[in-house]
Amino acid sequence: MNAFLDGCRAVVGPAHVLTSPGDLIAYVTDHRRRHIGAALAVVRPGNTEEVAAIVRLCQQHRVPIVPQGGNTGLVLGSVPDTSGNALVLSLTRLNRIRGIDTVNDTLIAEAGCILKNVQDAAADAGRLFPLSLASEGSCTIGGNLSSNAGGTAVLRYGNARELCLGLEVVTAEGEIWDGLRGLRKDNTGYDLRDLFIGAEGTLGIISAAVLKIYPRPRAQLTALAAVRNPAAALALLASAREHCGDTLTGFELMSEICLQLVQKHFPELHSPFSQRHPHYVLLELSDQESEQHASQLLETVIGNALEAGLIEDAVVATSMAQSAQLWKLREHISAAQAAEGKNIKHDIAVPISRIGDFIDTTDRLLAEAFPGCRLVTFGHLGDGNLHYNVSAPEGMPDDLFLARQAAVNRVVHDSVHRYDGSISAEHGLGALKREEILRYKSPVELRLQHAIKNALDPLNLMNPGKLI
Amino acid sequence: MNAFLDGCRAVVGPAHVLTSPGDLIAYVTDHRRRHIGAALAVVRPGNTEEVAAIVRLCQQHRVPIVPQGGNTGLVLGSVPDTSGNALVLSLTRLNRIRGIDTVNDTLIAEAGCILKNVQDAAADAGRLFPLSLASEGSCTIGGNLSSNAGGTAVLRYGNARELCLGLEVVTAEGEIWDGLRGLRKDNTGYDLRDLFIGAEGTLGIISAAVLKIYPRPRAQLTALAAVRNPAAALALLASAREHCGDTLTGFELMSEICLQLVQKHFPELHSPFSQRHPHYVLLELSDQESEQHASQLLETVIGNALEAGLIEDAVVATSMAQSAQLWKLREHISAAQAAEGKNIKHDIAVPISRIGDFIDTTDRLLAEAFPGCRLVTFGHLGDGNLHYNVSAPEGMPDDLFLARQAAVNRVVHDSVHRYDGSISAEHGLGALKREEILRYKSPVELRLQHAIKNALDPLNLMNPGKLI
Repeated sequence: MNAFLDGCRAVVGPAHVLTSPGDLIAYVTDHRRRHIGAALAVVRPGNTEEVAAIVRLCQQHRVPIVPQGGNTGLVLGSVPDTSGNALVLSLTRLNRIRGIDTVNDTLIAEAGCILKNVQDAAADAGRLFPLSLASEGSCTIGGNLSSNAGGTAVLRYGNARELCLGLEVVTAEGEIWDGLRGLRKDNTGYDLRDLFIGAEGTLGIISAAVLKIYPRPRAQLTALAAVRNPAAALALLASAREHCGDTLTGFELMSEICLQLVQKHFPELHSPFSQRHPHYVLLELSDQESEQHASQLLETVIGNALEAGLIEDAVVATSMAQSAQLWKLREHISAAQAAEGKNIKHDIAVPISRIGDFIDTTDRLLAEAFPGCRLVTFGHLGDGNLHYNVSAPEGMPDDLFLARQAAVNRVVHDSVHRYDGSISAEHGLGALKREEILRYKSPVELRLQHAIKNALDPLNLMNPGKLI
Repeated sequence: MNAFLDGCRAVVGPAHVLTSPGDLIAYVTDHRRRHIGAALAVVRPGNTEEVAAIVRLCQQHRVPIVPQGGNTGLVLGSVPDTSGNALVLSLTRLNRIRGIDTVNDTLIAEAGCILKNVQDAAADAGRLFPLSLASEGSCTIGGNLSSNAGGTAVLRYGNARELCLGLEVVTAEGEIWDGLRGLRKDNTGYDLRDLFIGAEGTLGIISAAVLKIYPRPRAQLTALAAVRNPAAALALLASAREHCGDTLTGFELMSEICLQLVQKHFPELHSPFSQRHPHYVLLELSDQESEQHASQLLETVIGNALEAGLIEDAVVATSMAQSAQLWKLREHISAAQAAEGKNIKHDIAVPISRIGDFIDTTDRLLAEAFPGCRLVTFGHLGDGNLHYNVSAPEGMPDDLFLARQAAVNRVVHDSVHRYDGSISAEHGLGALKREEILRYKSPVELRLQHAIKNALDPLNLMNPGKLI
C-alpha cells in the first residue's frame, strides 16, 4: 500500500493525502454520528484530472473508493465501512464556479461547491438556483446530484435531477466523460446524465455539472394554515395549485407534535395560533410580478379555503420578514426532535392521493406495536414526501428505543410498500437501506440494476456496499 | 421461421400476425416516405404479457425486433432495414388509459395510446397533459417516450422525459419490469426510467407509463412579434421570462421565408403585418388566473419590448380564437415547405445564448457552399432548438438538391458541434443519424453507451441498427 499512497502523493501533493487518525476522523464519521468507519487514507485532489489519476491508481491497486462531498448524508452513503481498505476521495477542493450564463440560464459548478455558494453565485447574477435543503451551508453540489437531493422547492422546480443539464464524470476506469452540455434538448443516445445522478458514486464520480438557474421571484410570501387532518391539507393543495399554478413553490405539512417540540426546545419561536390544531400546512408563493400580486393571490387562496371549511385558522405573512419567521418553525423541527432524544427517521414517499390514508393507517399500526411512541410527521406534502419520524415514548431511554429500530422500520416500510410508495424519497439508500430495499424491489428490477453496475464498474471499486 | 411465426400466432392470435406484402407496407415505410424496409412479419400483441411472450420467442429464435407505435418518427427509428430478418412489433393495440388520479395528478397510459387521446383523457378530467407536437393525432405515447419527444411546450413543461414518473417495460429478456410508480420523489437505485426513455427501443420496450398531468390554464393567449434578428428575439425572451416566469409557455421563432412559404401554399392564412420583417416570434402565455390577467401581462411584455426597441411591430391576440389563428402560421410551416419541394431537415439545439451567432455563421457558410439555398429556419427558440431546414434554390430539381444532402449536413452539423450543440434535439438518432453521431461523441461517451447496450441487450436484438 505504500506504493499506492506514494502514487497518490505524486498526483495531489503530500499535503492532500491524509493518513493520521486525527485527520481521518471527520471523514469516516457519518453526519448523525452513529457510524465510525475506517480508511486507508483521505485524498483531496484539486481538479478533475487529479480525480481521474487517483481513480486509475485505485484501479491498478484494487483499492475501493468512497467519494465524499460535504459528508452530510443521512444514509451512510459517503463514509467508508470499518474494514479500513477504502480510500476516501474528498471532492471539496473542486470548488470553483466555472462560469455563469444569464442568457442560457445555466451555471457550471464543480462537484465540491457548497450548495449555499452555488445559490449565492446565482443570486449575484440576478438569478435563482432553487435547490434548498437543511444542510445547504455544508453539503456540496456533487453530493446533491449523486443523491438526487430534494428539499423544499421540489413542488415547483423538481429534484436535483431536474436542475441539471449536463455532467462531467470520472468513470470507474479513470477516464473523464465531458458531458457538460448546456442544452435543454439533446436526444443523441442513452441518458448517461440521469444514470450518474442518484447513483451515489457507485458508477463513477461526478466532478462538475451544468445547472439550471431561473429568474428570481419578485416576491416570496408564506402562510401557515391549521387543518383538521391530512385529507384537508390535500384539498387545500388541490385548490392552491388550481389557483396559483407554478406560483405555489412550497407546501409543507407539520403535525401538532412538531410545533410542540419546536416551542419546547426553541422557546423564542412562537406558534402564531392561540389554539392547538392537529396539523399545519406552510404554503409558499413565489411571484414573478410583485409582492402585491403575491399577497392578493395568497389572500384569495386562504380566503376560499376558510370559506370552504378546508382550514380551521390561518396566518398570512404580509412581508418577507414574517415569511421567514413562519419558515423557522418548519426548519427547526429536526433540531427540536434531536434535542428531545434519539429518533428513528423515515424518508418516505407515497402517491399524493394516498398520503392521508397512509398516515392514518401507519400511525395506528405504530401505536399498537409501540405504545406511547410519538409520531413527528412533517415534510413536503406537495411532493408526497414525508419525514415520518418516530420518537421514543416520553421517558424511555434512547438505547432501549433504538433497540426497536428494525421493528419500527419494518412496520413503516411495509406500510409504505402497501401504498405503492418509496422507502427513500430524497435521501438515497447508502449502506443504511441497501439491505432493506431488497425486500421491496422485484427480481427483474434488481437484475437490471446489477447489470448496469457490472457494466460500468466491473471491479466493484466505486463506493462498494452502497446503494446496490 | 415457420415455427417462430406459429409461436407468434399462438400468442397473439393468427389475425394479429401479418405477413402479406400489402399488410406490411405501411409498417415498413417511414413517415417521410424516403425508406421502404422489409420484415418477416408484423405482430400486434394485445397486452403487456403478450409483448413479453413475443420478445421471449424472438430471443429463442434470434429474431431482431423493431418496436413501433404510430410510426411518425423522422429519423428511421421505427422501421426495419431492408434485410427482412426483423419482426415489427406494433404496440398500437395497447391503447388503454389504465387510470387517472386527479389528486396525485397522474395518468397511466399504455404505450399504444395516441397522444391526442392522452391529451383528451386529461382534459376530460379537467387537467392538462402538456406534450404537444405536430403528429399528435397519430403518434403514440410509447414512441414519444422512447424518442423523448419535445414539441411546443417544453419551455414550461419539459420534454417527454420530464412528464413521466414511471414505466412498465418489457426487457430484452422478455421479462416485465413494473416500474409504474406515481411518485414525485423516489431515490432507491439507478434511474432505470430515464434510461429506457429516449433509448428508441434499443434496450427494451416501453409498454405503459405513469404521466404527469397539470391544472388546466384558465387562459392561453398569444402574440406575434416582428424582430430584426435572432439577438433581438433573445432579448425579448429574457424580458418575457423575467416578467412572466412560468406563465410563458411558448416562444417560437420563424424566419421571413417561413411566413412567405405558408402564405404561398396556404393562401387562406394571412400575415397580420403589412410590412415584411426578417424574423418573427410567437409568444404564448398560459395563465392560471384569468384571461384578463394574461392579457394584461402580455400587453406589458409587448409594450415594454416596443418601448425598448426590441421589436419592430407586434399583434396581440385578444381571444383564444385569435391565438389559434396565429399558431396556424407556425403550424403550417412544415407542410408549406414540403409543398415547395424536398428539403433537408436539421433538428438542432445549441445553448440559447449562442443561437444568434449560430444562425448568422451557419447561414453564411451555407450561402457560400450552396448558393441560392433557402434557409427555412423555425422552432423552439426558448429551448435553444431550431428546425434549421434547407430548401433547394428556386427551380433546382429535387433529386439534384437531395444529392447534396450529406454535404449540407456536414456544414450544419459541424457548425452545431462548434457551438457545443446537439445534432438531434428532439427527434432522436434512429438509423438516420446513427453513423453521423460517431463524428461528434467522444470515445469515452461511446464506450459508456456500448457498455449499457451490451449489459441490457447482449444479443443485440432490440431495434438493432438504431441509435447505437
